[in-house]
Order: sequence, then structure tokens, then C-alpha cells
Amino acid sequence: MKESLSFELLKRDYRTRARRGRITTPHGTIETPVFMPVGTQATVKAMKPEDVEKTGAEIILGNTYHLYLRPGEEIIREAGGLHKFMNWHRPILTDSGGFQVFSLGKFRKITEEGAKFKSYIDGSSHMMTPESSVEVQRALGSDIMMAFDECVAYPAERKYVERSLARTTRWLKRCDDHHRRLETKAATESGSDTMKQALFGIMQGGMYKELREASAKQITEFDLPGYAIGGLSVGEPKDIMLDVLDECTDLLPEDKPRYLMGVGTPDYLFEGVERGVDMFDCVLPTRLARHGVAMTSRGNINIKNAAFARDFRTLDHDCECYCCSNYSRAYLRHLFKNEEILCSMLLSEHNIHFLVNMMKNIRKAIEEDRFLEYKREFYNKYGEF
Amino acid sequence: MKESLSFELLKRDYRTRARRGRITTPHGTIETPVFMPVGTQATVKAMKPEDVEKTGAEIILGNTYHLYLRPGEEIIREAGGLHKFMNWHRPILTDSGGFQVFSLGKFRKITEEGAKFKSYIDGSSHMMTPESSVEVQRALGSDIMMAFDECVAYPAERKYVERSLARTTRWLKRCDDHHRRLETKAATESGSDTMKQALFGIMQGGMYKELREASAKQITEFDLPGYAIGGLSVGEPKDIMLDVLDECTDLLPEDKPRYLMGVGTPDYLFEGVERGVDMFDCVLPTRLARHGVAMTSRGNINIKNAAFARDFRTLDHDCECYCCSNYSRAYLRHLFKNEEILCSMLLSEHNIHFLVNMMKNIRKAIEEDRFLEYKREFYNKYGEF
Repeated sequence: MKESLSFELLKRDYRTRARRGRITTPHGTIETPVFMPVGTQATVKAMKPEDVEKTGAEIILGNTYHLYLRPGEEIIREAGGLHKFMNWHRPILTDSGGFQVFSLGKFRKITEEGAKFKSYIDGSSHMMTPESSVEVQRALGSDIMMAFDECVAYPAERKYVERSLARTTRWLKRCDDHHRRLETKAATESGSDTMKQALFGIMQGGMYKELREASAKQITEFDLPGYAIGGLSVGEPKDIMLDVLDECTDLLPEDKPRYLMGVGTPDYLFEGVERGVDMFDCVLPTRLARHGVAMTSRGNINIKNAAFARDFRTLDHDCECYCCSNYSRAYLRHLFKNEEILCSMLLSEHNIHFLVNMMKNIRKAIEEDRFLEYKREFYNKYGEF
Repeated sequence: MKESLSFELLKRDYRTRARRGRITTPHGTIETPVFMPVGTQATVKAMKPEDVEKTGAEIILGNTYHLYLRPGEEIIREAGGLHKFMNWHRPILTDSGGFQVFSLGKFRKITEEGAKFKSYIDGSSHMMTPESSVEVQRALGSDIMMAFDECVAYPAERKYVERSLARTTRWLKRCDDHHRRLETKAATESGSDTMKQALFGIMQGGMYKELREASAKQITEFDLPGYAIGGLSVGEPKDIMLDVLDECTDLLPEDKPRYLMGVGTPDYLFEGVERGVDMFDCVLPTRLARHGVAMTSRGNINIKNAAFARDFRTLDHDCECYCCSNYSRAYLRHLFKNEEILCSMLLSEHNIHFLVNMMKNIRKAIEEDRFLEYKREFYNKYGEF
């Protein structure tokens, strides 16, 4: 059977490992490197999908764990899938639910079979396995589904990380087998020879380079259409993160997209791109927005700051988003102080636009052989506030 | 000096007192009868101004009391006025602040001079007078400003209502004098002969028809460009409200717009129009929205109802708003259960569209001599849910 997803490597930067690429999915193409806004509960918080699209975002993320618990994947299947349910008609990537389950700490238990956990909604007991994660993600109908893995916290003993990544690989096999079985069944019924969804594997291995290598070797044997780097940016210092990431990207195939999970600050995006990462996601821009923090070309600013009370300038005069085209800092501060929903709406749109636009500039810079120059320009301004 | 606002009576219904008219203001025209969404704190809650406009709304309301306390009218003046501050470029009506001040109960004290009150934000003491209310509204730059009045609660002793309405008339004189003085000064400076803002007077008199008559007689002597009916829908039973309203409209000039303050349920809008009211406002549609209640052609529905969990139909199949064109009841329920901001955004847009569209249909029905037929049709459906 043919894969539903393909990746085209359009250009390599001549000095760094940065790459310019294009991913094609059943719901459209994605220019890479790309930042993917997160729509945890079938909505990018405080934004209409049309407004997400207007920022230039080409793909969003949905969270399997949340959607499994509420409203339940069967309701989304009946609705015609996540795209239709939430009125977003471009590509969607769903995570496996693993990360959220493992974040539950004492409220979950891991076995070879999968992970048992208690619902944050009603305390009920649930079991998530590689097979059930694939099934939930099939009900959601995402373009890219992620393998069920264990994301190990930082710090972690080498012994534990080693055992965990071996299990993650065994789980990947179960995900891949189950996914292919279900795709084959569906294809036979519909007479198609193309898969509907793509499965990405996830590299683990904590901060141990040899384990990263072992993990990469094991997961790339599955010849999947894309691979993610998991277990980074989980609390470790930046220098350690970058040091490990430095090794990780080269361990993954050149001709497949590489996705660094859960990363979304401008510096991590630049460093990731420089090391050959193609995809990023993070809740940061929308979460910061709801706390009154705007990401700007001159650094983050807290809009509730008294200095903005009479500041009638635009939030970021280098920005052309809807918020910056129509509202002043004084107005945004007024909305924030009054807990007006419009503040979250405007800042979310601005922050998403900021990161999406930064990635657009990065893509252009790679095309024009000036990635490092653009990086320098960006940092020279960033921190001016 | 010429008034900035004019009213054209386009048509009278042949069986009822319903009227079809047009108000012209410096920021555009308003077709009447009209429902005005409320943007208390310089935002129609959970909506972008463009989306308010897309519902067909032609004028919104701002609350002087709230804007005086936060961010303060001077900041809005410096921003270039309320229109520019909040990015709404059509007409704005501001209330006088009186209603909110008088709702404060023991936290305010009324004297001939004005009303002393304590801020709900920091407990600080403030004094609002007819003159200061006019000045704040001038700083806001609304198209229509309201006179500072006392809205008497229900029930109230006749003696108190009588004394109160006499004071409201004295306050109207002070508002009108101050307004004309400031307009004349501004006109002299700019060389213009047209006022910038229009002042509406407010009829009071509680539920006592003779007092309503007295109030109307006193306020119409000022020959203002419009008049409001205040002190109705303040807790009295519907039959008393309609009985009093029945008398009120005819006491006001035919050639001026009549505004029934704080009224926004479909039945009150129909009854008001039938009795010759041209303008209405209410926070109801956006407040209900934030509580998960949708106003539909078949009555109000609570979206959190379990019956909607798998209901993939549109909220109101007679509605063409953005929400009804793109989302299902199941999705809206999911958003509400997860406290997602998008739920308030979508339901607010729907509810405002619902009332604005109902008024559009009412205007069309008056034009086509079938107002009572439309009213009957509406009620036949309304209550079907």
C-alpha cells in the first residue's frame, strides 16, 4: 500500500543542517520548517479556525488523550472526523496520548501492555495501549498520527531510560502492525491502494547519546513516513538539550520529515531548524496569550504592565497580524485588566501569527542562503524591549 | 447650531403603532426598529468588532460608568475616542452611567448635585453629576449620549418617584446646558456649525401613568433629537410593563427616535415595536451565550444538555450566522463542557445575529404591511424546542 504522506526536500542550507521542505498530506501541503499551533480539545484556544488559517498556519495538532476522554473519539467519528467536527480543513497531527498519560505521575501505571490511568474529569480508570491509541487516532482521522511511546522525565537513570526505549520500540511495532492491519482492511473495503493516515515513530533515549542512537536505529527500521524526537525540552538545561539534539537529527533519515515535539520558543525553533528539524509544536503562544503575554520581535511583553496604560502604539510594529493592524497596547491592557475574552482572542492570534511568520521568514532565509544572517538579525532585535 | 443626528420616519404600520425609520449619525445610518448589542467595557464580549458588524448590527452601546472607572475617559480621549480605541467605526450610543450608579444600592448616595458612589474596583469614592456625565461621554465621543437620570427601582412609592422624576428633569436641563455650552465652544474653535454628538433625554415616572405623562411633558420641552423610556423592565411583571409602555410611546414626539432602555428578549422587542419603539439594547444575548444558552427561532436552548452530545445538526436551521453555517450542537456542547472560549465566541455571535436578524425581519414585515403576521409566525415557532 502507498503511504498517504510524502516529503520533498527542496533545499539544504549551505552552512548548517537547516532544510527547506514540503510535506504533502490528504488535507493539503505543509511548507517546512513549520510551527504547528496546538488545538488540544478540538479548538486552538480562543481562535476561530479561519483566524488560525489567516495567521498562515498550515497544520494544527490535536490531543488524543483529551479527545478520548471528552467528547470521546466515537462522537468525533460520528461527526465525520476531527477536521469536520472542528471546522478545520487543513492537515491535523494527533499525538498518541502517551505524553499526557505519563504526565499524570501517580495517577498512571505502565506495563508492557500499555498505560493504566485515571481520568482527570471523573476519576474513572482507563487503559491506553499502542493498539487503542491507533484506534482513537483513526477515529479522529488525523493526517499524521503518532506512535504510542513513553516520554521519560528529566532527570532519569540510564537503566530506566534503556528499558523504556526498548518498550517504546516494541510499542511502535504494535502501533505499526495495528495501523497497517486497519488500513489494509479499510483499503480492501473501499478498493483503494493508498493509506488514509500516516504514522510517525518517536525516538526516545533521554539525555544519553548512545541510547538515542539505539532508539533511532530501532525505529528507522520500520521505514515510516516521518520521525519525531521525543523526550527533549522536558526540564533539562538548554545546553544539555541542544547537545543531545545535535546528535539526534543526523540519526534520522534525510528523506523523511523530522519533528521535535513540544518545542515552541523562538530560540528553540531557530536552534532546531539549524540542526535539521522540520516540524515543531507547542501550546506556548496561546497559553502565554491567555496570561497577557505577547511574543514580539523585541521579546515577550506583559501587556498588563502599567507602562502600557497610555501606550497607543501597536503591539509589535514589525507585525502585520489582525491585532497589530487594529489595536493599541493601551486597548489590550484595558481588555486584560477587565478580564475581557477579546484580550485572549487578540493575543492568541498575534502570538500564533508571530511564530508562524517567523517560520515563514526562516524558510525564505534558507531559500536565499541567509539563514544564519536572519537568525542574527532576529536575535539582535529580540531582547530590545 | 445644527443637530448631528436626524431621524426619518419611513413608514407607519397600518394596524399598529410600529414604525420603520432611519437614524443618521456622524458614523453612519441606523435602520429602525433596531437592536443594539452592548459593549460595556469597550468590547462586545467575546466578539471581534468585524464579527459584530457581520451579524448586521449597525450601532453598539458603551457603558459610561465602566469606562469612566476603567480605563478612564482620558485614556480613551487620548486614544482618539471610543470608536478608534475599540476599532468599531459605526455609531455608538453611550449611557449616562446613572443606571449603574443607582444599581449600587448602599454604595451610592443621591443628592441634588449628583450621585456619590464607591468604585467596585478599589472602593475609592467618586461623584457623578449631570455635567461630569456629559463630559465623560464627550471624551468617549459617542454619536448618541444619554442624559444623567435616576432609574427608580420597582416597586417604588409614588411620592419618591415624583420627586425623583422632577430631579431627573432638572438634571436633564443641566446636561443639555452643559452639552450645548461645550458643543458651542468646540464649534467656535473648529469653525463648524454642526454639533458632534446628540443628547437624548430619558422619561421616568415608574409605573405611574400620570407621572410618565408629567415626565414626558417636561423632557420634550427641550426639543432633543431623541428620547428614551427609562425605568421599565426593572423587575415589574410583564403585564404591568406593557400597560405602562402602552401609554409612554404616544407621549413622545412622532418625529424623534424612541429608545426603550435595557430590553432584549424577543417578546419585549415585538411588544415594544408594536407600541412604536425604535431602539432597544440589552446584554442578554452575550450574557446568555457565556452561560451556554442559545437563542433560536424555536426558543432558547441550553447547549450543555446531554441530548446534544450526539446531535450533529446545526444550532438553528433557520439561521445563517457563522456559527450555524459551520458547527454542530455536539461540537458546541463539547466546547462548553470543556470551558473553551470558542463556545462563548460562537454563541455570542449567534445570539447577536439572532436578535439583529429578527429586527431585520421585523423591519421588512413593517415595510410589507405584515408586521402582525410576522409576529404570529415568529411566536408559532418560538417555543417549539
